[in-house]
Amino acid sequence: MSIQTDALIVGAGPCGLFQIFELGLLGLKAHIVDSLEHPGGQCAELYPDKPIYDIPAVPVCTGQELVDKLMAQIKPFGATFHLGEEVQEVSAQDGVFRVRTSKDTLFDTKTVFIAGGVGSFTPRKLRFPEAEGLEDRQLHYRVRNPGQFAGQHIVILGGGDSALDWAVELAPEAESLTLVHRRDEFRGAEATADKLRALADSGQANIVLSANATGLELDGDRLTGVEITQLEDKTKRVLETDQLLVFFGLSPKLGPIAEWGLEMGRKTIDVDTSTFSTNIPGIFAIGDIADYPGKKKLILSGFHEAALAAFAAKAIIEPGKKVPLQYTTTSPIMQKRLGVEEETG
Amino acid sequence: MSIQTDALIVGAGPCGLFQIFELGLLGLKAHIVDSLEHPGGQCAELYPDKPIYDIPAVPVCTGQELVDKLMAQIKPFGATFHLGEEVQEVSAQDGVFRVRTSKDTLFDTKTVFIAGGVGSFTPRKLRFPEAEGLEDRQLHYRVRNPGQFAGQHIVILGGGDSALDWAVELAPEAESLTLVHRRDEFRGAEATADKLRALADSGQANIVLSANATGLELDGDRLTGVEITQLEDKTKRVLETDQLLVFFGLSPKLGPIAEWGLEMGRKTIDVDTSTFSTNIPGIFAIGDIADYPGKKKLILSGFHEAALAAFAAKAIIEPGKKVPLQYTTTSPIMQKRLGVEEETG
Repeated sequence: MSIQTDALIVGAGPCGLFQIFELGLLGLKAHIVDSLEHPGGQCAELYPDKPIYDIPAVPVCTGQELVDKLMAQIKPFGATFHLGEEVQEVSAQDGVFRVRTSKDTLFDTKTVFIAGGVGSFTPRKLRFPEAEGLEDRQLHYRVRNPGQFAGQHIVILGGGDSALDWAVELAPEAESLTLVHRRDEFRGAEATADKLRALADSGQANIVLSANATGLELDGDRLTGVEITQLEDKTKRVLETDQLLVFFGLSPKLGPIAEWGLEMGRKTIDVDTSTFSTNIPGIFAIGDIADYPGKKKLILSGFHEAALAAFAAKAIIEPGKKVPLQYTTTSPIMQKRLGVEEETG
Repeated sequence: MSIQTDALIVGAGPCGLFQIFELGLLGLKAHIVDSLEHPGGQCAELYPDKPIYDIPAVPVCTGQELVDKLMAQIKPFGATFHLGEEVQEVSAQDGVFRVRTSKDTLFDTKTVFIAGGVGSFTPRKLRFPEAEGLEDRQLHYRVRNPGQFAGQHIVILGGGDSALDWAVELAPEAESLTLVHRRDEFRGAEATADKLRALADSGQANIVLSANATGLELDGDRLTGVEITQLEDKTKRVLETDQLLVFFGLSPKLGPIAEWGLEMGRKTIDVDTSTFSTNIPGIFAIGDIADYPGKKKLILSGFHEAALAAFAAKAIIEPGKKVPLQYTTTSPIMQKRLGVEEETG
């Protein structure tokens, strides 16, 4: 069974969220898909606590606050969120797009809005030639089954929240656990860092700061050790290793959108500035992924793009119907959605 | 003496105000001119108390609140406001625009940003052939000297705040005062309407509702009466009148901008969507006055237009200098302006 919808939005960053609002103002309901488990895209994932100053009429807010404000703003329009899913395939038939996600959710939609930002986020990987062959056996960028690490020699690389959280969680059951971080201070939560220091004090964990992993030692195809070099004096040593966990953060990746047959730049999609339509009628692109002459990757530009794309989509979804520009001060939809009493003019 | 500036903004509505911010982010200082006595344009003048729902990340705010938020946001950039002045003349020489206002303020500026909205606001006038000749003698669209109305027969047309305010203020000193309104309810503040009703109850004022002024009576070039027609039964009568005050609201007028030699529509200026430049290099147009394929008169579009215009202006003002896109989370200018401590990444 497929989900029938007027509009499918790919990407739940700030521009994708605001696209729900602009469609809603025109009476259109939307479904929205994002590969992350929560809405907000880069804002929530990469800089939730950093202040943003250039959202018009919002003198300052953090990335997460911006997302929260947008979520409050779109609430009246009741869009359906499909999180933790990536759009995999798009095919078109008779003016309807069939879209399939990584969880096999199927949509039949008249319009698609790509608000994919700089792409979906994938873990930043370790750059040693032997690394790829070890992946998911002895080298891990995420932890799916914590139990598999019990009783083993574990090395964790990284100093952010993921590295600290897993070090604290896995150390008590490990044969040995060493956390190696290239800086002399952790980036993650101080409380977790304190827990790890306590584990180190009681001999359950080792902390190596200001050091890099500079090589892997293998016995056949089996990882046996990680070479560590101190940044200051270049001294090297090898840590005995059964399992290597790497938490170097997330890096953006465009993913399957690159294969949809759209006119694209290296990591962007070409759009028309009057409609923010791609070269495929019915597929729009907004936000950082959209490109046109003069484009700046600003959130406020994505908001404008979402507004114009919504008007163009309305004309596709309800052809021949006139779309008057209504101001929200008097919009019947806003009045109805918000239960506002009508004012006499 | 003329004022030397990088940027002159014409119009202090929300888009003109945000233009200050976008220029400021690029290190450019601006002067701003508006014909109104306060910043905010239409938002502050026409709908200060009406809720606006479509400012991204601001789920609801009134027109005045929007202006207040923008004023707070641009404060760090210290633009100079020239209010109650209209730009009259623009001439260009050697890449510098000389701009003269109605108060004879002179600017020499490298760039001009027209954020004129739907134009400056002029009172909506009474459409009788005799009206123009009576203006400022016995027919008034604004009150400059309240004392001149004492001891006279006054008729006020209108039912909004201006009509009510002046009726309440002038009635006690008038020989007679009649307020005529075409609807059966006032549009202005209820408290003021109550005051006027109290004056009517004590015989100091008359209120005529659901009636229109349908003619003027003159004795030579002197106004003697206003003909009033009840909407329901079409009965007519003439009110003895020495002074007629008309408060039908404000209507936009483009003003001298129409004569600058810009490529224009009927009340709009054509711009390029990559820079929001007009056909005259160095003159930009943003907000409701700007026109391009797909244009919608939305405040959020004006914000986007201001951002791209600022980048294009920077290239004119400081040619050859690279303008990197900086995010405000890490922008040295924002850090300095706001005294924010630098975060380690």
